[in-house]
Amino acid sequence: MAAPTATFWYEFASTYSYPAAMRVDQAARARGVAIEWRPLLLGPIFQATGWKSSPFNEMPAKGRYMWRDLERVCAADGLKLTRPDPFPANSLLAARVATALADQTDRAAFSRAVYLAEFADGRPIHDPAVLSELLGDIGVEPETVLAAATSDPVKAALRASVEAAVAAGIFGAPSLTTADGDLFWGNDRLDMGLDHAARLG
Amino acid sequence: MAAPTATFWYEFASTYSYPAAMRVDQAARARGVAIEWRPLLLGPIFQATGWKSSPFNEMPAKGRYMWRDLERVCAADGLKLTRPDPFPANSLLAARVATALADQTDRAAFSRAVYLAEFADGRPIHDPAVLSELLGDIGVEPETVLAAATSDPVKAALRASVEAAVAAGIFGAPSLTTADGDLFWGNDRLDMGLDHAARLG
Repeated sequence: MAAPTATFWYEFASTYSYPAAMRVDQAARARGVAIEWRPLLLGPIFQATGWKSSPFNEMPAKGRYMWRDLERVCAADGLKLTRPDPFPANSLLAARVATALADQTDRAAFSRAVYLAEFADGRPIHDPAVLSELLGDIGVEPETVLAAATSDPVKAALRASVEAAVAAGIFGAPSLTTADGDLFWGNDRLDMGLDHAARLG
Repeated sequence: MAAPTATFWYEFASTYSYPAAMRVDQAARARGVAIEWRPLLLGPIFQATGWKSSPFNEMPAKGRYMWRDLERVCAADGLKLTRPDPFPANSLLAARVATALADQTDRAAFSRAVYLAEFADGRPIHDPAVLSELLGDIGVEPETVLAAATSDPVKAALRASVEAAVAAGIFGAPSLTTADGDLFWGNDRLDMGLDHAARLG
């Protein structure tokens, strides 16, 4: 029998995707679950709701709380937190690069590196030079991947991911989906979702 | 030294306030924390954000997910769940009645009874006859309390609660505030908030 699987949907500009991305592989491995990393863009999903920006900017009180809460969550996980400026970051190129990395190990390593650059170190993840450096750090050839990232097939694959996310009922990130189509939203439901995936296996 | 305290802010139409209300007193007692129950109305807060209804109605995908998630949360807590129709319920009278019950034990008992009537039994909590029955069940005199509930001082006290909630940074329910002004939003942060309250004590 194949190992149980779950799909981890994430957006590089999403704050709670940061602690989730940093722990999902370890939490999944502990349960014998294999993770498919699948980047998406929340912009088109939020725009369909009528929002012009992150809900944390649209609702200032919720935004102020989120930063306070994220501080507690990151502290509990031993993660450094620097508030990106501007927020939300422009995550389009990073999402395309992650999509271009077909190898799941590379994609996961690059994605964690992006989150650390953005939320631990406050670096501009829209900058190709930053992404190039992160690609080099994980041992892939930056120029090839960056060229692929802006190719039509990769752009189309990312658009297809957003459509697949919407079809799966996803409205925010991080989200976890399981083989039976169940959905678990947020860093707070990551463990429940992985437990569910393991039971299906 | 006085026992540590925390304020539990809740809205009778709020879905996640139901499991939180059913367990907050027990969870607080286990930590030596005394709970002040404080009903509020989210309608005025949501309207200030530009929403005409519950965010779970404004964002249908989020709403569909919420009912699925609430089902899992209630099942884990051994709570029956019936989806109120219409949703959200009109919670104004119930909030005024809870405000009129100055005794915290009565207020907590009435509030739990309202949540069970609404979310376990699917009963109309806007109906004075239903609220009257629940008041009788907890051993207070329904007519006196219902009359007080629509008096000017009680109406003003509930409006003041909404204003105090906004001033405390509250944007949703349930919320827990602690003596140092810290805020914990959602049934998912209830235990973290109570732990924090206990440490302050």
